[in-house]
Amino acid sequence: MTHTEGMLRDGALENKTIIVTGGGTGLGKSMAGYFLRLGANVVICSRKADVLANTADELRQSTGGRITFVACDVRKTEEVEQVIARAIETFGRVDGLVNNSAGNFISPTERLSYKAVDTIVDIVLRGTYYFTLALGKYWIENQIKGTVLNIVTTYATTGSGWVVPSAMAKAGVLTMTKSLAFEWARHGIRLNAIAPGPFPTKGAWDRLFPEELARKFSFENRIPLARTGDHQELANLAAYLISNFSAYMTGEVITLDGGEVLSAGQFNFLKEVTDDQWDAIEDQIKSATRTGKTPE
Amino acid sequence: MTHTEGMLRDGALENKTIIVTGGGTGLGKSMAGYFLRLGANVVICSRKADVLANTADELRQSTGGRITFVACDVRKTEEVEQVIARAIETFGRVDGLVNNSAGNFISPTERLSYKAVDTIVDIVLRGTYYFTLALGKYWIENQIKGTVLNIVTTYATTGSGWVVPSAMAKAGVLTMTKSLAFEWARHGIRLNAIAPGPFPTKGAWDRLFPEELARKFSFENRIPLARTGDHQELANLAAYLISNFSAYMTGEVITLDGGEVLSAGQFNFLKEVTDDQWDAIEDQIKSATRTGKTPE
Amino acid sequence: MTHTEGMLRDGALENKTIIVTGGGTGLGKSMAGYFLRLGANVVICSRKADVLANTADELRQSTGGRITFVACDVRKTEEVEQVIARAIETFGRVDGLVNNSAGNFISPTERLSYKAVDTIVDIVLRGTYYFTLALGKYWIENQIKGTVLNIVTTYATTGSGWVVPSAMAKAGVLTMTKSLAFEWARHGIRLNAIAPGPFPTKGAWDRLFPEELARKFSFENRIPLARTGDHQELANLAAYLISNFSAYMTGEVITLDGGEVLSAGQFNFLKEVTDDQWDAIEDQIKSATRTGKTPE
Amino acid sequence: MTHTEGMLRDGALENKTIIVTGGGTGLGKSMAGYFLRLGANVVICSRKADVLANTADELRQSTGGRITFVACDVRKTEEVEQVIARAIETFGRVDGLVNNSAGNFISPTERLSYKAVDTIVDIVLRGTYYFTLALGKYWIENQIKGTVLNIVTTYATTGSGWVVPSAMAKAGVLTMTKSLAFEWARHGIRLNAIAPGPFPTKGAWDRLFPEELARKFSFENRIPLARTGDHQELANLAAYLISNFSAYMTGEVITLDGGEVLSAGQFNFLKEVTDDQWDAIEDQIKSATRTGKTPE
Repeated sequence: MTHTEGMLRDGALENKTIIVTGGGTGLGKSMAGYFLRLGANVVICSRKADVLANTADELRQSTGGRITFVACDVRKTEEVEQVIARAIETFGRVDGLVNNSAGNFISPTERLSYKAVDTIVDIVLRGTYYFTLALGKYWIENQIKGTVLNIVTTYATTGSGWVVPSAMAKAGVLTMTKSLAFEWARHGIRLNAIAPGPFPTKGAWDRLFPEELARKFSFENRIPLARTGDHQELANLAAYLISNFSAYMTGEVITLDGGEVLSAGQFNFLKEVTDDQWDAIEDQIKSATRTGKTPE
Repeated sequence: MTHTEGMLRDGALENKTIIVTGGGTGLGKSMAGYFLRLGANVVICSRKADVLANTADELRQSTGGRITFVACDVRKTEEVEQVIARAIETFGRVDGLVNNSAGNFISPTERLSYKAVDTIVDIVLRGTYYFTLALGKYWIENQIKGTVLNIVTTYATTGSGWVVPSAMAKAGVLTMTKSLAFEWARHGIRLNAIAPGPFPTKGAWDRLFPEELARKFSFENRIPLARTGDHQELANLAAYLISNFSAYMTGEVITLDGGEVLSAGQFNFLKEVTDDQWDAIEDQIKSATRTGKTPE
Repeated sequence: MTHTEGMLRDGALENKTIIVTGGGTGLGKSMAGYFLRLGANVVICSRKADVLANTADELRQSTGGRITFVACDVRKTEEVEQVIARAIETFGRVDGLVNNSAGNFISPTERLSYKAVDTIVDIVLRGTYYFTLALGKYWIENQIKGTVLNIVTTYATTGSGWVVPSAMAKAGVLTMTKSLAFEWARHGIRLNAIAPGPFPTKGAWDRLFPEELARKFSFENRIPLARTGDHQELANLAAYLISNFSAYMTGEVITLDGGEVLSAGQFNFLKEVTDDQWDAIEDQIKSATRTGKTPE
Repeated sequence: MTHTEGMLRDGALENKTIIVTGGGTGLGKSMAGYFLRLGANVVICSRKADVLANTADELRQSTGGRITFVACDVRKTEEVEQVIARAIETFGRVDGLVNNSAGNFISPTERLSYKAVDTIVDIVLRGTYYFTLALGKYWIENQIKGTVLNIVTTYATTGSGWVVPSAMAKAGVLTMTKSLAFEWARHGIRLNAIAPGPFPTKGAWDRLFPEELARKFSFENRIPLARTGDHQELANLAAYLISNFSAYMTGEVITLDGGEVLSAGQFNFLKEVTDDQWDAIEDQIKSATRTGKTPE
């Protein structure tokens, strides 16, 4: 079997109702679609009602699953609560939440206004804790063992320049994941996260940079496994983390990035040395090492 | 579906031959059994031929799968190479390796002899890199995109007293995972790891300590999710990491421990405060906080 | 020499002007005082003008140093900019920033309102990035190689229940530290952080909890080094990180906590086993281990 | 004051006897020299008696301090014990240990023999735990509150290709640091570590690679702070960690690397974008972001 197929047994998410924020497009849509195929009820939300309507129609037809949508600005608590209310009204209850809504400014930080930073932090961090707090209260009150999946980034841990507002906010989400995983374990509530590498929506990256830069920065050249990810690969992992099969996992963040984050290794720049060059320098290195002259 | 069932679609490991070190008992045996059910060929090895023979018979009968075994001390490179040779001889090639052999002394470190420490380090670290190096050379030479799964521990990262030899060795294994994941990605070789929490073999823990201590230290009391893991839960994750479904993941370590490692959180000791106590101190805390008197 | 003395050579911070937020009380005041003794000019700010005035007077007299203060709510960008303007007006320029302002609600998370969470996140995260962004722009424009020191917590990394708003916000600050350390290194700007363990202000902890709980949770009992920290110990590390002596360090977070964060180690609960108990169970363990029955 | 000067107050290490392994050359020699200037007694060891003798003479003359040396292969426990015995004989007791001995093979891992890997692991990991175990037993027996400083690497944590034997061994040392920091805190023994970035010995790096590669891989081009470290900068940090001024720190690893390890940040490759290019693409990015088309 190949990595582009669904991996879980049929019916793995039956009788579960899952909310996917930012579920109208991109990875959110891919996750929602796979959840439906596995038998879940799905509620998608984002700010754009027309996009949501189209996605819901498309996924309903392609999967035969039960899906509804609610327009929602995740920065507004009353709209967040409406999504939850609608989900309960439609499907009877809510079992899972995927915090997937995001925004980003790619820019030198000193070029950003205070307000620009606030906007990203509010969408990513505030939106996530509003949804998680609202559902957590509902789950605890109703003794439901809910599950949260947060979509973060590797730079939530490593940090990264040029995406500082997103980095700060995603770091907050990641630490919320670990904190509430411990605190709410007593209620049977689990929280986990995925840090995806490049799963680009077709063309987005190319549109972003002039052709010369886009080629220079192509993910294929920078990712150890030399390709971008397939949406089904992320959907497979997400479905596992939302399902009962991961019932013993909580507070964990799983990186799925083709090895991209490993590039911090101090000598990994040596990947550019060719086999012939290694042949030539091998004796030189070994003898230098033996005499204790190797820098480390 | 519940967490005690197999999660992957039937045939997920078909046409794969997987070596499981320490595969005669415990978690190694459980992984081997599930790999067989998913269609893999399996080779188990450990130091005890009789235990291996019994396990191979049992698993062959219960799963109908193809399994063989070779007695092997992982600290001896020639024995390691014999396991690989036998696997190729029997099944034509090797696709996966699970480094699962381990040993441990639970003891105040100052009570250990140099030799005792060496023994554990040799089994855990040396055994793992011997097997990985031998198979890596074979895979690179034969252009096989092999996969390695290393069973480590959370204390490979956090450290832990009273198991220092194992902690050092497992840390070495973890860093080997990340290092070779980057270096060998060009060859299509992937390496990942699992850090399991308590998946105790029945009775082992109880036999280890006098009754009073065993009760005091019971995992149920110390694990946020309030139970030990089920072997199938670990087998599910292991099968995912060995399968093509995780083809975009490399250099990653996944913790599956019921939240045990989260206990480092600075205020997590507050789990012992009861609801009534919270009611009583809530106003007190809030007012103290507002006036800036809260310790942090 | 003992840990309660200042460690840096006299004059280590001469000709540097440093802003310390939350500098009126507690650790902020202790850092400000030591910076003055080392020859720095200091500007302290917080919301309480009267507290600031008293602290400035006290430190001026005890150290003979040059200090001023500005009342400031770090959540308001115009007030943040006023602090910086006053510092430049008074001392000619600004060289260093210590983001030390904080707030915290210790509470089960499900008891918090959205607004309560927002308040802590705004003080800790928003206040920090407002100050850092404002000074960063000033430093880049004026080609000053400024230095930022962020006071975070160990639970920014580990997560912690019962302090979730603070945990999320401090995680954002920590990741900002790493992100801008890389991005602004080209401008010679450095950012580092300290994660302090318990350096309690006298009596705060005791006032917070009823006597029975306060004793149960006493830091002395939970910290490996069996004591709380002395303010001078933190001031020593802070002065190093603000000084030129750390000129080759950036993006780093240093934990100073008596070993508190190490408690995640899986077998660290064994610290409760007495020497006599170890004597009694030593043979039992070793024999169980040898036969492969030890849980891990 | 600049980063090339000693930072601690005079006499900071008075009455302390410190063993520095690998103390005959490079960073070990630099640390030994600064410890002597701060009043410590120093014992250096390595495999080369003649190098040690010269270094001891040189440092004795330049600092006026008390220093002796013992030839020692750290892989041999009896030689390790001789170093300790000589130190006690000469100076009355031992207070500190710097595990600084190292070795490295820079090579594609699949080109290494089992024996080559063993050699590095034995020098780095075995040598370190032999010395630490021997001194730990001595300290516990004699109720001395000793201090250990381990020199590790950033790739002990991140992993790195092409230096796999060293990476595994240094990871073991790092985890030993955290493990024993917790376990031996009850005895007042502290263990910390430094992960240095590039502090090259003059010419070593250049000798290692052909000119073309050496220039391409020059540290100046790859380090955010755009230079290599000065030996005094490392000696300053080492002296702090060995001194009483760090009495509240244990189990900590401090990175001093000019920001090198931060390069894992997912968007840090954007450092190559010029200001003019940012001007040109700024509007493009912002509009793409607003419409949700930004890859993340």
